Amino acid sequence: MIKITGNLEKVTVEVEELSNYIGKTVQIHGSIYKIRKMSDFAFVLLRAKREIVQCVYSKGMTRFPLEELEEESCVIVTAYVQEESRSKKGYDLQIQNIEVLSKPEDPSPIVINNKYVDTSIEKLLDFRPITLRNEKERAIFKIQEGIVDGIREFLKKEKFTEIRTPKIVYAGAEGGANIFHLDYFGKIAYLAQSPQFYKQMMVGVYERVFEIAPVYRAEKHDTSRHLNEYTSVDFEMGYIDSFEEIMQTETMMLRHSVQYLEQYYETEINLLKIKLPVINEIPVIKFIEAKELVAKEYYRKINDYDDFEPEEEKLLCRWIKKETGSDFVFVTCYPSKKRPFYAMESKENKEETLSFDLLFRGLEITTGGQRIHSYQEQIEKMRKREMDIEQFESYLMMHRYGMPPHGGLGLGLERFTSRLLEQENVRLSTLFPRDINRLVP
Amino acid sequence: MIKITGNLEKVTVEVEELSNYIGKTVQIHGSIYKIRKMSDFAFVLLRAKREIVQCVYSKGMTRFPLEELEEESCVIVTAYVQEESRSKKGYDLQIQNIEVLSKPEDPSPIVINNKYVDTSIEKLLDFRPITLRNEKERAIFKIQEGIVDGIREFLKKEKFTEIRTPKIVYAGAEGGANIFHLDYFGKIAYLAQSPQFYKQMMVGVYERVFEIAPVYRAEKHDTSRHLNEYTSVDFEMGYIDSFEEIMQTETMMLRHSVQYLEQYYETEINLLKIKLPVINEIPVIKFIEAKELVAKEYYRKINDYDDFEPEEEKLLCRWIKKETGSDFVFVTCYPSKKRPFYAMESKENKEETLSFDLLFRGLEITTGGQRIHSYQEQIEKMRKREMDIEQFESYLMMHRYGMPPHGGLGLGLERFTSRLLEQENVRLSTLFPRDINRLVP
Repeated sequence: MIKITGNLEKVTVEVEELSNYIGKTVQIHGSIYKIRKMSDFAFVLLRAKREIVQCVYSKGMTRFPLEELEEESCVIVTAYVQEESRSKKGYDLQIQNIEVLSKPEDPSPIVINNKYVDTSIEKLLDFRPITLRNEKERAIFKIQEGIVDGIREFLKKEKFTEIRTPKIVYAGAEGGANIFHLDYFGKIAYLAQSPQFYKQMMVGVYERVFEIAPVYRAEKHDTSRHLNEYTSVDFEMGYIDSFEEIMQTETMMLRHSVQYLEQYYETEINLLKIKLPVINEIPVIKFIEAKELVAKEYYRKINDYDDFEPEEEKLLCRWIKKETGSDFVFVTCYPSKKRPFYAMESKENKEETLSFDLLFRGLEITTGGQRIHSYQEQIEKMRKREMDIEQFESYLMMHRYGMPPHGGLGLGLERFTSRLLEQENVRLSTLFPRDINRLVP
Repeated sequence: MIKITGNLEKVTVEVEELSNYIGKTVQIHGSIYKIRKMSDFAFVLLRAKREIVQCVYSKGMTRFPLEELEEESCVIVTAYVQEESRSKKGYDLQIQNIEVLSKPEDPSPIVINNKYVDTSIEKLLDFRPITLRNEKERAIFKIQEGIVDGIREFLKKEKFTEIRTPKIVYAGAEGGANIFHLDYFGKIAYLAQSPQFYKQMMVGVYERVFEIAPVYRAEKHDTSRHLNEYTSVDFEMGYIDSFEEIMQTETMMLRHSVQYLEQYYETEINLLKIKLPVINEIPVIKFIEAKELVAKEYYRKINDYDDFEPEEEKLLCRWIKKETGSDFVFVTCYPSKKRPFYAMESKENKEETLSFDLLFRGLEITTGGQRIHSYQEQIEKMRKREMDIEQFESYLMMHRYGMPPHGGLGLGLERFTSRLLEQENVRLSTLFPRDINRLVP
């Protein structure tokens, strides 16, 4: 009987390890990213897992006809690793031979191997499977990977347990009409707007939990900052002394994530020319004070006393940056009527909640706050809002049988990535965005 | 202006660090798991993040009336850490005072603080928010966390990039009727059965990718091994020399994951008495040979030449275990007609695919294989199956503009966890399972 031993030996070498092979002949694989013909030789750029590697094709040396080489062919290159002090890497790759594993059927309809893909956002997204092959496009999602890894490393260190909760749910957590409906074996079900109910339940189990998973909002807005499916980085923590503790934890988390990027994603940071934010201290301003400040500083009328207009978020961030140097600002104490039924209200002022948003470079990226943990208090608030308490019986189970003071937040991963990269549109930080007009690819 | 500095200092001490405080008085927080009254003292078991901590209540020493203490209250315990050589930890916790942060409204309707929750699976799941507070119940999902962390650590080491792809999709990847429908702004959309199309596209970008995310199957089966929403651990890798390479990689991945559990989850392994599988070599058997072997060895009639019956999977695993000692077996070369349109067929026999399933302790936990990377070959197969090629235009873009030989797999996380723990039902390894009858909690 044949057996799989779990020993995999590849003849090809990892690109990152090439400097160990100076003076030797190696095989590397990848996709032909670009062929740059010079007078009597050519540069052949090979797209490997994370790097674009430059190889030198010389007429005398390379046993493969250059005219037969096509961009986006997948190949194994046999190359001599030649010491070269003028090269940044310390070596040159002299191609000896090329084995073509596969060829494209047609040349790419969009130029993808320039510094950036020069096209409209619609085309960029229509041709996502190939435009993502561009060096800068794919670097965006390495950065996103790094953000998440940094966050996860921090949360694990702080003893949060990672959980996985259902996205098909019986009730929406955030209320409102912006929820997707689903036929679930003849019953109506919904797609989760957030893991709110479940992460709270799990605080009763592990004290501190987090989940990084998709959430769904059936919003009909077609703006540069809305997605109908996005990744929410959610955490929830018990035994908090105040809701400031959640903001403290988020500050530490983001600081750690940025440091993680600095440490492991230098290539992409340089390639995308990312200006990482310095996170020493994050200023805090109350919602109503922020509204008044923006009105006064920028000569604006307040149209809506309960919510920010997008322009106000931008202006607030501009003012904070100017006055304090911070790219972030916490806005606290949002009006109770604009926050969900589980938000805890301030003891001093029932109209205000112990909640916050975090704005980053002009955009809200996080909503968080303390939750009600007392059964009676929660029931009362739901009654006032004329909610169907029976429908929430399993949610209320945790309150009924004992919950610690707790709170948490949800961070929109694509929004955070997008502002980190100072992009115009959050879709640019989404591999395959879903919006009111886009379901493909 | 107030500022958040990201320095969080708690007065309470982490339970894991108590041995650093021998001879001192500390504060710890947690939930009262169990009160065990003895003649003139009591044991108070405190449920902390990962451990149940035993504290000693003594009438003379503790300044809190024992009769007022309730199970599932959330408390801060002030305790003296007394050296005690007879204790396994080297110390005892002598309670000096208790501060009650919150109390349950009612006592739990189910006993959750015994060795296990002694009830039906239906009740266990109906009362999930509280039954998960049981020491063993919650340990299951720490193990699940460890499985995933081990897998992620391995895949990162092997230079796989973690991706996030949409779950609202325009077409099902696996075909068939078992797909959930959704009204997406007046269009029909579906819930992803797998990230198949997207992970393949991303092989064209990063060469090696993985995703750990929910997938959806609208199967009407109500069995012990089906869930309608589950977590799929998917990876996909380019530049493979053969489909055996995928099996090699899975073997290494599972071996690493089990080693990771051994290293970091000893507490839960002991608590749940888990028999970790030894993964040295995994036997491989062709599908048709496996069918015939089971028929011969166990005197069974072959009813279906194209697929396994669940009983056959169990018997095959039993035989493999007896003959080789392995808890796993790879079954390869499934009939082409039973595999999706993207499966690559064997060059020698077009009726067979270069595909495999991995069975573990009687249950299929993985499906994988090599995919078609040639545009013409893929188009041809789709035509033969009378598929609407236009609908798959964006999927086929990658084939058209160049793809390496590649393949991958999907591992059902709940199934793997469940067999690792030798449970009767996969729901027991799901925090909040979704099945044909269950949408709550």
